[in-house]
Amino acid sequence: MRIIVGTFIVCFVALSAKAETGHELWLRHRGANPVKVVCSGESATLSLALHELRQGWQGEAGASVALEIRPDKSIKGDGYKLAASGVQANTELGILYGVYELLRRQQTLRPIQDEISNPSYERRVLNHWDNPDGSVERGYAGHSIFWRSGTDSLAVTEKDRALWQEYGRANASIGINGTVLNNVNASPETLSGESLIRVKAIADALRPYGVKTYLSVKFSSPSLLGGLKTSDPLDAQVVQWWKAKVKEIYSLIPDFGGFLVKANSEGQPGPQDYGRTHAQGANMMADALKPFGGIVMWRAFVYSSEDKDRARQAYSEFMPLDGQFRDNVIIQVKNGPIDFQPREPFSPLFGAMKKTSVMPELQITQEYLGHSIQLVYLAPMWEETLQSDTYQKGPGSTVARSTDGTLFPQKYSAIAGVANIGLDANWCGHHFAQANWYAFGRLAWNSGLTSDTIADEWIRLTFSPNQKETLNALKSGDWTKNFLTPVKEMMLRSREAAVNYMMPLGLHHIFAGTHHYGPGPWYAPKGMRPDWTPPYYHQADALGIGFDRTRAGSNAVDQYREPLASQFNDPATCPEIYLLWFHHLPWTYRMKSGRTLWDELCYRYESGVLQVRQFQKIWDRAEPYVDAQRFAEVQSKLRRHYRDAQIWKDACLLYFQQFNRLPIPYDIERPVNDLEDLMKIDLKWSHHN
Amino acid sequence: MRIIVGTFIVCFVALSAKAETGHELWLRHRGANPVKVVCSGESATLSLALHELRQGWQGEAGASVALEIRPDKSIKGDGYKLAASGVQANTELGILYGVYELLRRQQTLRPIQDEISNPSYERRVLNHWDNPDGSVERGYAGHSIFWRSGTDSLAVTEKDRALWQEYGRANASIGINGTVLNNVNASPETLSGESLIRVKAIADALRPYGVKTYLSVKFSSPSLLGGLKTSDPLDAQVVQWWKAKVKEIYSLIPDFGGFLVKANSEGQPGPQDYGRTHAQGANMMADALKPFGGIVMWRAFVYSSEDKDRARQAYSEFMPLDGQFRDNVIIQVKNGPIDFQPREPFSPLFGAMKKTSVMPELQITQEYLGHSIQLVYLAPMWEETLQSDTYQKGPGSTVARSTDGTLFPQKYSAIAGVANIGLDANWCGHHFAQANWYAFGRLAWNSGLTSDTIADEWIRLTFSPNQKETLNALKSGDWTKNFLTPVKEMMLRSREAAVNYMMPLGLHHIFAGTHHYGPGPWYAPKGMRPDWTPPYYHQADALGIGFDRTRAGSNAVDQYREPLASQFNDPATCPEIYLLWFHHLPWTYRMKSGRTLWDELCYRYESGVLQVRQFQKIWDRAEPYVDAQRFAEVQSKLRRHYRDAQIWKDACLLYFQQFNRLPIPYDIERPVNDLEDLMKIDLKWSHHN
Repeated sequence: MRIIVGTFIVCFVALSAKAETGHELWLRHRGANPVKVVCSGESATLSLALHELRQGWQGEAGASVALEIRPDKSIKGDGYKLAASGVQANTELGILYGVYELLRRQQTLRPIQDEISNPSYERRVLNHWDNPDGSVERGYAGHSIFWRSGTDSLAVTEKDRALWQEYGRANASIGINGTVLNNVNASPETLSGESLIRVKAIADALRPYGVKTYLSVKFSSPSLLGGLKTSDPLDAQVVQWWKAKVKEIYSLIPDFGGFLVKANSEGQPGPQDYGRTHAQGANMMADALKPFGGIVMWRAFVYSSEDKDRARQAYSEFMPLDGQFRDNVIIQVKNGPIDFQPREPFSPLFGAMKKTSVMPELQITQEYLGHSIQLVYLAPMWEETLQSDTYQKGPGSTVARSTDGTLFPQKYSAIAGVANIGLDANWCGHHFAQANWYAFGRLAWNSGLTSDTIADEWIRLTFSPNQKETLNALKSGDWTKNFLTPVKEMMLRSREAAVNYMMPLGLHHIFAGTHHYGPGPWYAPKGMRPDWTPPYYHQADALGIGFDRTRAGSNAVDQYREPLASQFNDPATCPEIYLLWFHHLPWTYRMKSGRTLWDELCYRYESGVLQVRQFQKIWDRAEPYVDAQRFAEVQSKLRRHYRDAQIWKDACLLYFQQFNRLPIPYDIERPVNDLEDLMKIDLKWSHHN
Repeated sequence: MRIIVGTFIVCFVALSAKAETGHELWLRHRGANPVKVVCSGESATLSLALHELRQGWQGEAGASVALEIRPDKSIKGDGYKLAASGVQANTELGILYGVYELLRRQQTLRPIQDEISNPSYERRVLNHWDNPDGSVERGYAGHSIFWRSGTDSLAVTEKDRALWQEYGRANASIGINGTVLNNVNASPETLSGESLIRVKAIADALRPYGVKTYLSVKFSSPSLLGGLKTSDPLDAQVVQWWKAKVKEIYSLIPDFGGFLVKANSEGQPGPQDYGRTHAQGANMMADALKPFGGIVMWRAFVYSSEDKDRARQAYSEFMPLDGQFRDNVIIQVKNGPIDFQPREPFSPLFGAMKKTSVMPELQITQEYLGHSIQLVYLAPMWEETLQSDTYQKGPGSTVARSTDGTLFPQKYSAIAGVANIGLDANWCGHHFAQANWYAFGRLAWNSGLTSDTIADEWIRLTFSPNQKETLNALKSGDWTKNFLTPVKEMMLRSREAAVNYMMPLGLHHIFAGTHHYGPGPWYAPKGMRPDWTPPYYHQADALGIGFDRTRAGSNAVDQYREPLASQFNDPATCPEIYLLWFHHLPWTYRMKSGRTLWDELCYRYESGVLQVRQFQKIWDRAEPYVDAQRFAEVQSKLRRHYRDAQIWKDACLLYFQQFNRLPIPYDIERPVNDLEDLMKIDLKWSHHN
């Protein structure tokens, strides 16, 4: 034992020299050259811009930089004009954004040319699913940075303020300009006077960074918090209650952003409880917010246990209301029709609601994509959604263009991302999960960026050697070849790998239990509503597998505009990535590869596992280029990632094999677990975090 | 849930049609053709021979077979002469053995030629480490078939008798003619009058099969059971007590075999407690047994915590006693100098004790080779030991020839195997563990048989299709090509695979805790005697690894006869399979492969894991040729086998890497577990069975 302990100590001392916790995110301090800054104004935000320049300037020592607020019609909103000589913008925030971009260019060794950068979406908003007690729904990175339980839960400490400022800075650096501080499954207490004082403190800390504060509200707050007999949106007292509450909020937070509402969804109260429509409910709130410039983000995530196909329901419920919403209501639509699955086709509401503002809701936290255990870079998934063509105004009517105001008139445009942020030292639980926060911000600013570009930027910012080593290491090409290139490759392949080992070919929602981590294609406790159980989604039987959403089935295909509807309707033309989403097909169905559907499924699962094995190799080879702490933490996560990918493969193949009784092709690696055992570890999954 | 349950049922019905439990071992009933048998005598044993012939005859229908007891000097002991026309022998048992061989030839489609078969060892003995309460030390196949706890523990039921007969038949079919019924860590109660009545019942059941009964005895039985003040072997009362006890035993069991004694070993009492030598202790018992033809098997498995090298101790303690033992004492020596490790060089006592009978002790139960979880065919290990050249009487002085009476005069020759038998339906826990019982018997009968031959026989007997299918299946070559050949290949490689993923290159005894299943190179609880902890054996430090047993170290090498001593002493000539057994070498030591020692270790561990992965493929491909039950049970074991091989690799590489700080070569698969976690699962291992 002596020997071992001794060794550990030696080890630790030697390796920890360069350790990084990851807390600095993509904003790692690397020293700076002196710089002269000329600024055309003075304000808290501009001070931040100056400060960032001075502590981060990597350009020529003694160079001059001008920060100039000067109206320019080619610059939109908080956009900016970048030049080697400095930054020009219409707003202070534009200046700050420009400064971050300028420093980013320096740090990533990219040239600074004269160019204008305007945001794709006006409101780029994080949604925190943080509860008043500090827990975070679907949070895998520790407790809330905003809320906590205990006797001092509402006290604002210096530590709180410092953390909120760091959070504000991180968001500003990637263009995020709004944050919803609490869970969409909202507590009415959020709107209490005491709570609002804490909200004000947060808003004050974030304001210089241009991050506006929003709140999720519970639709029944007038009754629950206000003591009214009803929360009927057409009731005069209710209307009055909301108006007064909004006024109270704005008196504390003059730039308050607005409300996010989850209504008549998964047990949450809503206008339908009083016989009113979503439009009536949303408009009532919108009217209260309008005088102050606030907006309502009203979620379309609705489904009931009666409908035969959950995928159809948001469309069915919201399309009839198109045109009935106020102009400061935006319908917040999840990227896919079900629920943040590893892969879904885009929601048919995008582009379909032509007289209503619609905003995409993406999920940064990896609820269905491996929590903070698996390395899954989400930008490729979001790129896939945003660039999907809805055909709603002819070819090229991408989801991005259908929601950013290009194709349809929207008073406000917005995009939301469900945050993956907590009190963990590295903010996101997994060092590579930071890339998803980063990518959301970058895509929200510029929906045309590629996953590759964003990954490249993020890796350079997050892992490149510090200033002293930069020139040698980066210029020699050694770092690029041995670290950047393979690690980027790993990131870019990681989401497809997850799809492969979790649910390839259009399979979806075959998770165990309620934790949405491990596999549970068998999960169906007695009495549970069918649409909360995997067999509802995979429909596996002796003959085949998949959910029939064709015209012969639930006809979800017809919620899409032609030519998509017909394309999806026919298995011969349906993209294979969506095959089992739209079709129930025989196990022997012949795939484009020439394999049967069952064999193809087996190979996909296998390839997912092998990809993760490859990721382990890539990361281990990268060891010389990473500080010891982050190297070891990621290495450990990848080990678990591999084991869990293996479990996914084994569980799904062995489970489905029970139905089809076909052999797993003999040239792939055999399952290494018994189905019986895997079916018993549900509980383990739910306690893994 | 409904769907799933339904599927299970369908599955079970369809697959169980051909299910076999494995209880029939290598003696599966396959129907028979009529046969005429002429027999030269009448007895219980000869009746069995007739019965076997009639129920198992696969030759020409209506053929005649003669069984003839007729003295022939070329036939030794219970040997036999085989011919197409029948069996000739000196003894009834010889006839029975001949009949089993004749039937075996028919079932395995091998020709029957005129030939004589004589046993290599006169006494071919199983050692059961069964406790009076029915538990089995190092038993992984259920409780004892001889003993049980509870109020009816000594009652002999019909079920008991039937099981003992099945056991006797199985042993007779492979030539085993003795069995020690109880643990070498013996309870004095074994010799009580009540217990002896049960022993008599067992002996009666086994007698017709030619299986003699032996008992392990506790050296201090005179005091503990007899109430004497001492158990000093030179004390007259003690001598008298043993004489009386032996007489009592023989009055019940006239053909009783004798005693097995573990004395002054691991806390067991022995003659040294009274200042006497092993010889004095053993001789006292031998004198009591001599009038009845009984023998003493006295174990040389001794070591103390004081010695610097456990591997040297049996030799150091027993060599000075050479020539002092009675001729009915046989020193029972484990195959290697330490303790049934996956690989050890042979014990230097073999061939060295020239004036004392010595018998090898092999371990059939897989204490250190994966229990009944891992598929490890042990014949290659035993073949390796038995064919090792001791050089004690010049080249060719193999361990086999040094112990079977060929090289040295021995009044008795014997070989022991620690049994792997319990109440499990398939007797051995793992279907393939039956092959080890089988191989022990076959090697004890004919130490010149190859592992390949034995595996071939066993597979044909254990898995070949039943009579109706035999001709077509076997003659078509399909079964041979797709089942026999790959499965045999798997068996023949399995022990080397285990060495690779557990302890390659001469590493030994790096098991966790006391269960001897999982890895524990770190295992060293505070206060535990060093020679019970792995660091004592692997000696890993920053510079290197291995136990220095050279002349510069413990000098265990000089216990071997030249040229071995010098060969082992020099790393350049020491076989690499024993390298770290005899040498402490730098991590960078250059191996014959050109790799460094560390890299070579990594590749060995990796190759072990990959071999098990290959075994899984072999077995899965064999599915069409095996009944559903045995297929599924072996498949499940192989899955766990794979997972545990992976754990071995990860644990050992990550643990040793702490010392040397060298990378694991990047072209091998990465560890998928964290060392920290693996170090916590000791307890899991000990409860795995």
